Amino acid sequence: MLFMFEKPLGMRDTLPSLYEMKKKVRSAMSDEINSWGFQFIETPTLEYYETIGEASAILDQQLFKLLDQQGHSLVLRPDMTAPIARVAASRLFQEGHPLRLAYSANVFRAQQREGGRPAEFEQIGVECIGDKTISCDAEAIALMISSLKKAGLSQFTVAIGHIGYVNTLFLEILGNEERANILRRFLYEKNYVGYREHVKSLPLSSIDKQKLLSLLQLRGNETKIADAKDIIESANGRETVEELDQLWTQLAAYGVTEHIKIDFNLVSHMSYYTGILFEVYAENVGFLIGNGGRYDQLLEKFGCSAPATGFGIRLDRLIEALDYTEEQDDIHCVIFSSEQRSAAIEFATGERANGKRVILQDISGINDVDACANAFNEVTYFIGKGKKGAE
Amino acid sequence: MLFMFEKPLGMRDTLPSLYEMKKKVRSAMSDEINSWGFQFIETPTLEYYETIGEASAILDQQLFKLLDQQGHSLVLRPDMTAPIARVAASRLFQEGHPLRLAYSANVFRAQQREGGRPAEFEQIGVECIGDKTISCDAEAIALMISSLKKAGLSQFTVAIGHIGYVNTLFLEILGNEERANILRRFLYEKNYVGYREHVKSLPLSSIDKQKLLSLLQLRGNETKIADAKDIIESANGRETVEELDQLWTQLAAYGVTEHIKIDFNLVSHMSYYTGILFEVYAENVGFLIGNGGRYDQLLEKFGCSAPATGFGIRLDRLIEALDYTEEQDDIHCVIFSSEQRSAAIEFATGERANGKRVILQDISGINDVDACANAFNEVTYFIGKGKKGAE
Repeated sequence: MLFMFEKPLGMRDTLPSLYEMKKKVRSAMSDEINSWGFQFIETPTLEYYETIGEASAILDQQLFKLLDQQGHSLVLRPDMTAPIARVAASRLFQEGHPLRLAYSANVFRAQQREGGRPAEFEQIGVECIGDKTISCDAEAIALMISSLKKAGLSQFTVAIGHIGYVNTLFLEILGNEERANILRRFLYEKNYVGYREHVKSLPLSSIDKQKLLSLLQLRGNETKIADAKDIIESANGRETVEELDQLWTQLAAYGVTEHIKIDFNLVSHMSYYTGILFEVYAENVGFLIGNGGRYDQLLEKFGCSAPATGFGIRLDRLIEALDYTEEQDDIHCVIFSSEQRSAAIEFATGERANGKRVILQDISGINDVDACANAFNEVTYFIGKGKKGAE
Repeated sequence: MLFMFEKPLGMRDTLPSLYEMKKKVRSAMSDEINSWGFQFIETPTLEYYETIGEASAILDQQLFKLLDQQGHSLVLRPDMTAPIARVAASRLFQEGHPLRLAYSANVFRAQQREGGRPAEFEQIGVECIGDKTISCDAEAIALMISSLKKAGLSQFTVAIGHIGYVNTLFLEILGNEERANILRRFLYEKNYVGYREHVKSLPLSSIDKQKLLSLLQLRGNETKIADAKDIIESANGRETVEELDQLWTQLAAYGVTEHIKIDFNLVSHMSYYTGILFEVYAENVGFLIGNGGRYDQLLEKFGCSAPATGFGIRLDRLIEALDYTEEQDDIHCVIFSSEQRSAAIEFATGERANGKRVILQDISGINDVDACANAFNEVTYFIGKGKKGAE
């Protein structure tokens, strides 16, 4: 019987106090995103597996799949980037100018273990579709920083890198993708010791080994941008550094560089990124609260070639970083008997009109008046012949 | 390939204009619900089939089902009443006083046909758990009416009935549930012609037939309450009329009877209702936008016997009834070239701080400047050596 009252693996209830906190943070971020001219849309929870499941960068084993009554494979959306790309490609792109879209939506990732990560969580984010300029990457990052600040977060770092830099450097030195993949994996896992060991074991010249090891030093302030130019040779590679350099200048114009760290080692699990990419860490808790980047090839999968960039913030982790504490709601309980019903209703209506939260509780509906009264900050009785305030 | 860009049967995208309308209506209703002291909670999209699928009143064929990786049957929640009952039973009920909970959440009902009903739609509602009094039914109905008004709806009718009245009358006259079910089905389908024909064909005395036919007259204003007493005999039956009588008096105290119609023929598809039940119709569109009622036996399924009542409003239908029209967002587009980047950012930041929605668009990110400019109500150019307003 206990099973009856449980929830599926990784599924959680959000009780009133956390619900209000989520609402507050969502609202602060949404207001800021709105004010930057991004337009919120909503997409279905269920999508075709062939459309969204395969276009998303989430591992197949993390997808919740089902068959509909027509026999098609469906998935619960694992992220919002692919659904928004679908909408942009099929309905909005005819408008002929870059689209700025936003979302706040639950996404789903099947979990393997009890007590692990949530299988359903809310993401808030934006996608700017149809604009290839670095200005658009800078805008996404500046907006992300601004909306996090509006949500009340002050101590956080945005690590910015360029997937093109890593890819070009590895190809220049290693010559093939297979070898590059091994090193990218170490970077993705942030296993720098393993990376070093592996580089040392490679049959390369000491100059090339030194370059690969130098990559690990390319994390820090903006001086790392110049350093990055020194170890890359191809024009393609230098262009990626040039892009980061422009990005830094633009972020300085937005006045947000205090939150920025350059990290040329950044490699994301999101396989669709093609250019600048970034991750946000909350400093007090040390974990990732969001990420983003440029994905110039995803829209092609929906029959519409267009550049795009965006970010997504995990609301649950942001709230943890905000040091959320549970608070009792400020609700005034009016306990009445039927003789005083009208007076109680009149009183409650007036209080509510003044912005107060007021419960109307018939005394004959409660077993234990004291227990009920103790549950609220303020209680007023409308019983018998008069009104009595209490507590 | 077209298939690639489609959505599953009954699934829809919500584009910016409708999104904002939904947000506005949801917010107006939520604020009112909050002010009456109800607390919003969120439950998972996926629940165990054994827990929620079976406790919900939705037909099995309308459930989206899937297996999780542990082999359990899961469902996408088909309504919110059962999940809230689960939470109330397992986590909150120890508090020892009636719980007033609220939700605004998407629910899922699989559809069989193209172009038919939505398979995912949002419901906003409340549940009051642990209070057996009519006061609580009156509160739910008064709150529903008040929140619909706050959402901007003025022309609507709440039809109120009592499932106990119909059940008792049928049992008194027909003697068994099998026969009662046939008549209840006619009422549920609002097929009053079929009901009449069927009654005439029954092997009953003419007095009994007349009583069954009189039931169809019990729809209208509060005088129908006295009429209802005349055709029922058992104490149980009379008590249900007495409850509706009390309810009417209480709704009068709330000042909302102008929206109320008495309807003793009301029979819901929600099999869990046990007492007073109601449906809301928007008058201009003629369709159901919400319903509710008392369900005193549902909590038992979660191991906690407790009375309960509540309502749910369908946001999509409410918006249709509100005569929603698409509006262009009021967004100001600032088009800049890189020389003027800082000035453009400064201008946009100032405007946003004043509550305006401003896009910052790098001119080199757009192919067709005119098409872009035409898409916005207001455009300002920061290009070359100066700032130029336009339109």
